Order: sequence, then C-alpha cells, then structure tokens
Amino acid sequence: MARIGVILSGCGVYDGSEIHEAVLTLLALDRAGAEIVMMAPNIEQLHTVNHLNGNEEEGMRNVLRESARIARGKIMPTTNMAAADLDGLIIPGGFGVAKNLSDYAMVGPGSAINPEVMRLTAEFLDAGKPIGAMCIAPTLVARVGQQMGRTLKLTIGNDPATIADLEKMQAVHVECPVDEIVVDEENNLVSTPAYMLGESISQVAVGVDKLVAKTLAMATAG
Amino acid sequence: MARIGVILSGCGVYDGSEIHEAVLTLLALDRAGAEIVMMAPNIEQLHTVNHLNGNEEEGMRNVLRESARIARGKIMPTTNMAAADLDGLIIPGGFGVAKNLSDYAMVGPGSAINPEVMRLTAEFLDAGKPIGAMCIAPTLVARVGQQMGRTLKLTIGNDPATIADLEKMQAVHVECPVDEIVVDEENNLVSTPAYMLGESISQVAVGVDKLVAKTLAMATAG
Repeated sequence: MARIGVILSGCGVYDGSEIHEAVLTLLALDRAGAEIVMMAPNIEQLHTVNHLNGNEEEGMRNVLRESARIARGKIMPTTNMAAADLDGLIIPGGFGVAKNLSDYAMVGPGSAINPEVMRLTAEFLDAGKPIGAMCIAPTLVARVGQQMGRTLKLTIGNDPATIADLEKMQAVHVECPVDEIVVDEENNLVSTPAYMLGESISQVAVGVDKLVAKTLAMATAG
Repeated sequence: MARIGVILSGCGVYDGSEIHEAVLTLLALDRAGAEIVMMAPNIEQLHTVNHLNGNEEEGMRNVLRESARIARGKIMPTTNMAAADLDGLIIPGGFGVAKNLSDYAMVGPGSAINPEVMRLTAEFLDAGKPIGAMCIAPTLVARVGQQMGRTLKLTIGNDPATIADLEKMQAVHVECPVDEIVVDEENNLVSTPAYMLGESISQVAVGVDKLVAKTLAMATAG
C-alpha cells in the first residue's frame, strides 16, 4: 500500500486549499487503497477572505488548523514528515498555495517558499519520489526545482501570464486541458490544471483522478 | 435537467457542514447533469471549533460566509429560495446541521429549527418533492415532519441514542449500513448514514452516490 502525503494550505479557494481539489484527491487516494498522510505548515494564513464577495475580512486564521477542517482532524505539521517516510506527495491547489505555502501571489516568479514545504518538496525531487501538483501548485514545485538547478516539465493549463512566470522559473510548460495530465517522466512529476481551467467539479475530477492514478503508479513502480 | 437545492451549514464537521459529504454531493449531482443551487442561512454559527483538537475557539463566524468556501462563492441565503423553484433538496451532515440549522446538538428531540430552513423543508414535504438527508440531517427532517404531524421513515445508521431521539420525533427508524440508503417512498425521502458510520471517504461516497441518484430519480419522476 503506497503512503502518500497531501500538503494542504488552509480551507477555501481564496485563502487556502481549493476544497473540491483536496477532497477529490482524498477520494481517489482512498478508493485506490493508498494510505493518506495529510500535512500543513503550522503558520498563520496571509489573510482571511470572505468567500461570498472576495473581500479581505477580520480575524487571523492558522493554516494547519483550517486545513484540519478538510482532514476531519487527521493532519500533522509538515515539520513531522520527511520524504523518507512517504512514497509520494500531492499538492492540491487554491490561493493558499500561492499565499501561505509561498508568496507567489504577491511576488511572482521570485517567490519564497515556506521553509518546511521547501525542504519536503526538495527531498522528494532529490529522491526521485513522485509529486503530483494541481491548479496553481506547479508554480511552487517549479520554484523549488529552480533553486535546485532542475528544469521541470509542468502544466498550469493555458494562462499566458502564469506560463511566462513558470518559464522564468526555469520550467518547461506544456498546455493541457482540464481532463488531462502532464507527466514529467524524468523527474517523476504529474500536473493537471484543475480549477485553473475547470468550469465544474466533475470536469476537475477527471484530471484529479488521472493525476492520483499516475502518482500512485510512479510511487509503486520505484 | 433537475434543479436541486443543497443546504449547507458552515464549513467543517465540528461546527458546520461535513466537507466530504458536501463535496461528494456536488460531485454526484454535477456528474448527473443536475443544476445545483447552494444555500445557507445568513446567521452566526453557534460557535467555532478548532478542528485539530475539538476545542471551542475565539471568533464568531457566519454560516453563509463559511459555507461559501465549499461553494466557491456560488451560494445564496435560504431566504431567496422556495420549494416551488426547485425539484429536490439535499442536506449534507456535519454538526452544523445540529448546531446552526437547528439546536438538536444542545436540546435533543425537542429542538427548534432555524425558521428559514423549517419553512423550506416544510414546503418540500408539503409539495411531496424529494429530500435527501445524510448523516445527522435526518434529525432535522424528522423534527420538521413531527411539527407537521407527519411520520417519516429515515436512517441515521445504528446509534441507539440518536435512534431513540428520532422515534421521540415520531419518525420510524430503519438501521442501515454506510453503503446503503433508506427510502421513504410515501414521503419522497432518502437518507444514508454517511459519517455517522463511515470510516473512510470512499465508504461514504457509496452511500452519497446512491442518495443523490435516488433523489434525482424522484425529482424527475414527478
């Protein structure tokens, strides 16, 4: 049974993990019989967004604690885990990836990655263990790869500005529809656009299911 | 295409909607081609629970605004909708049903239902339009039925205390495993235990998929 880490970044598309992408990931992993290890950094969110109107609202929230809502409490700090303990890693999208796990939403291609997420992702790349990244998460993986001198093949769909950013981070971008994945066989990476392109949850589920299946195949092929 | 209302009660199993149940509902409805209308009452939550440790925490949250996280912003107040506008209604579980939509978690079988949720649910029962209730939500539907003098057939799984409460609310309880549904053909009701019994998301998905399919069949049979 493969043991797959899932890094969450809060609970809600505008300030945390995209909830549908996260839950679809858990569903596909559980259906395949994988052991799921949910993780999040124990840090404050960048901010809290009112998901009715998109405005910033009062009240600071903690990334680990909000992620625990998606995990039903079964989650640990990223500090507790190493790539050596896991067979694969999946990072669902949502603005939390670009606001809490990194500062890509504010800074762009020169973004800084949360040190623990940086360490863990680098360990996976170093060990050649598979990483699945959906939605905006490939910007994080590309930036980690760049800092290791690695050129990674990834997709974020077809948004020209984000593609240009990925290329500045030394990645090779491949356009991809919502129901497909891009595989970097050399670096054991899988990516899918998810809600970068998806117009409905059932569309997004097709790509997420393929991403999870391919990540698991790579995790057990090793 | 059936138009199905989904009532949410916040975002997180301990103080709002159970996130997996809500997302699985949206997935099954979208895959079936249904039009989804998400709703929640525009009221304050009973309280906020730290989902890491189960303790109450500071900061009041709004049910509609937190539910909007699951809905990616596409949600309206329950006041805006009537049964006449919809073909069916689904209520996912989570403590939010028993803390925000009603006070069942505090009061038990004599619970009061939020007036707007009471009105909407009663309209559905009155019109004979289908209602799907999962997890703890049958306690709410039974209590509405009791106040209308109706005896409803429902399941919450096999928990003796909750079964006794349902029977005090004039309902007929049928024991049911996580991967099955109980159907009340006379009153057009479907229920499934979901996380009242489920030990994993893939188990819960089996029951939710059956509940959604049956609710849609009833919605289009009319």
